[in-house]
Amino acid sequence: MNQVNSMKEKISPRVIERLTKYLRCLESMSPDDYISSEEMAEKMGLTAAQIRKDLSNFISEFGEGFGVRGKGYQVRILYSGIERILGVHKTNNIIIVGAGRLGSALLSEPEFTKESFNVIGIFDSAEHKVGREMSGLKIRNITELDYFLETKDRVDIAILTVPKVAAQEMADKLTAAGVKSLLNFAPLKIKVPENVVVANIDLYAKLQELNYWKEKMV
Amino acid sequence: MNQVNSMKEKISPRVIERLTKYLRCLESMSPDDYISSEEMAEKMGLTAAQIRKDLSNFISEFGEGFGVRGKGYQVRILYSGIERILGVHKTNNIIIVGAGRLGSALLSEPEFTKESFNVIGIFDSAEHKVGREMSGLKIRNITELDYFLETKDRVDIAILTVPKVAAQEMADKLTAAGVKSLLNFAPLKIKVPENVVVANIDLYAKLQELNYWKEKMV
Repeated sequence: MNQVNSMKEKISPRVIERLTKYLRCLESMSPDDYISSEEMAEKMGLTAAQIRKDLSNFISEFGEGFGVRGKGYQVRILYSGIERILGVHKTNNIIIVGAGRLGSALLSEPEFTKESFNVIGIFDSAEHKVGREMSGLKIRNITELDYFLETKDRVDIAILTVPKVAAQEMADKLTAAGVKSLLNFAPLKIKVPENVVVANIDLYAKLQELNYWKEKMV
Repeated sequence: MNQVNSMKEKISPRVIERLTKYLRCLESMSPDDYISSEEMAEKMGLTAAQIRKDLSNFISEFGEGFGVRGKGYQVRILYSGIERILGVHKTNNIIIVGAGRLGSALLSEPEFTKESFNVIGIFDSAEHKVGREMSGLKIRNITELDYFLETKDRVDIAILTVPKVAAQEMADKLTAAGVKSLLNFAPLKIKVPENVVVANIDLYAKLQELNYWKEKMV
């Protein structure tokens, strides 16, 4: 998360990142199972103390005493508590801006069939793409964005899959239209107003990191 | 980076993550320019002390006195030093495993036209895809992987773009064939031997994080 300026609270981005990993870890378990912080730590390569500390930030979401002595946390309670913390217990509306190969790949992601994120629109600025269908959605002209936001459901997150040269301009259009949250795939740091949050997925940077670590492996 | 067990040294993954961001920051500048740690800190939302500390881990890559008092670092020297640290001053070979929409999108990424990463093969297990062309590369059967690794250039990184259900099996095949470094797009934690490094790009987890932060914005 590269911009968390205007926050109401002081939770570290790393805590929220780990919460998403706890969900992934719990997904493979039965809801009725119990898991201790030690078992989770072992699975995740973290310490049990770290996990307990992370969860203690949100004790009111779980209810006191949600950990059972000698058994640990019930998977169902832990999972649904983290879902509430992240706001993914309800449906959040997404638009994809950039109807290229990456936009198309994301639109067909099986994860989007889950209830918590729902793609309600896909936009592009290329006239020849506008009006075509992509995974059942009609590609809209980016010029329709204001009208779309006024007349359709709330947009919670916009995913930017446009080329690098277009990313800042599209981000400007989105934030001017009132979108408060962007997931940017373009390999640059986009500038946004203080009350807008941006996350980046930078493939090339991930490859650079991996490239460093592979040289360090024995 | 979720597995950095067998390392020769003790640099934090966060340091390496920031180095990739420093490169992005420097990309937009002229090589002859100078930038101080204060100016970089301002651009990146970090502290100057953090940047100086990160760079001081690698002082031998830059040469002592590479910062000029009153001017800062020369962009060219800083950039090429970080490239050497990350091993991206030379060409690294990549294969993509999974010739679906995401694999296709990555293959057409303009960033891959840079010299530091070169896609030398794309693999799939679906018979009807094998032999087709994708961005100029012939899709190979995953069963050819061993032969490919024995007869072709070294593979530095394999990018996994297969569905979740196939990811662990493909990772097993890759590591058995000697691949030491995986970038996994499937939404699960894959298990690998201790001497293999894995990085994950988890779209859904990023959306969950964003979803948390957007609620906290004023």
